[in-house]
Amino acid sequence: MADPFALDPTLAADTIALTRLDLCEVRLMNDARFPWLVLVPARAAAAEIIDLDGAERGQLMEEITHAARALKETTGCRKLNVGALGNIVRQLHVHVVARFAEDAAWPGPVWGAGQRLPYAPPAASELIARLQGRLGATQP
Amino acid sequence: MADPFALDPTLAADTIALTRLDLCEVRLMNDARFPWLVLVPARAAAAEIIDLDGAERGQLMEEITHAARALKETTGCRKLNVGALGNIVRQLHVHVVARFAEDAAWPGPVWGAGQRLPYAPPAASELIARLQGRLGATQP
Repeated sequence: MADPFALDPTLAADTIALTRLDLCEVRLMNDARFPWLVLVPARAAAAEIIDLDGAERGQLMEEITHAARALKETTGCRKLNVGALGNIVRQLHVHVVARFAEDAAWPGPVWGAGQRLPYAPPAASELIARLQGRLGATQP
Repeated sequence: MADPFALDPTLAADTIALTRLDLCEVRLMNDARFPWLVLVPARAAAAEIIDLDGAERGQLMEEITHAARALKETTGCRKLNVGALGNIVRQLHVHVVARFAEDAAWPGPVWGAGQRLPYAPPAASELIARLQGRLGATQP
């Protein structure tokens, strides 16, 4: 196979599968402090947005938009934060985070802010169901 | 005018004009610690990427790509960081930052990391000229 995509093991361990869109896997960061989606383009060779071709970049932008709208409608957040960093996990992934003025890192970034706090299972299940309803694509 | 765009005063104070692309003003963050571009879509009503229409979002992605390539070619950075946060300055703006394993915040994010360190004028002039050469658009 030219492009044997496999999800990075750190991303897999820190997140919960939500759905698969045309380009990206959409996952929920397992951190109860912030409603936080992670989009992972299924392109094994990509570490940067500029590693994608033009059509893939356009698709990524539309999937970021779809995820951001779903997250905003689900949470009623004050602000969306979108970021592609990859300083620790090299596989290209895009964070879409719902921010609130009373959250644990406001107005700073979520990246590098304290320790991840895994969801208690019932809270995760409810949020996952609501997000999957809004994202509306095939379940992974 | 329907869309009387004016650059946010905090962004204006913290950055240096580099060029104007079809959608965005491109500015250099006046922080000698990190080679750091800021793209500001000239859309007064936009605070979020999802406030742009589909054509504008596609154009934004292509201008992010153009800026990211220019920054990578100019600096030889190890990683690009791209982010749209806006928790402090509400006007939509996208950060494109060149990161190095030896920089002042690695592997953490640049946002919220210590204090901005303005360029000494000769260093800024040289970097500005190199970036403007790569960005290749009309000067502001």
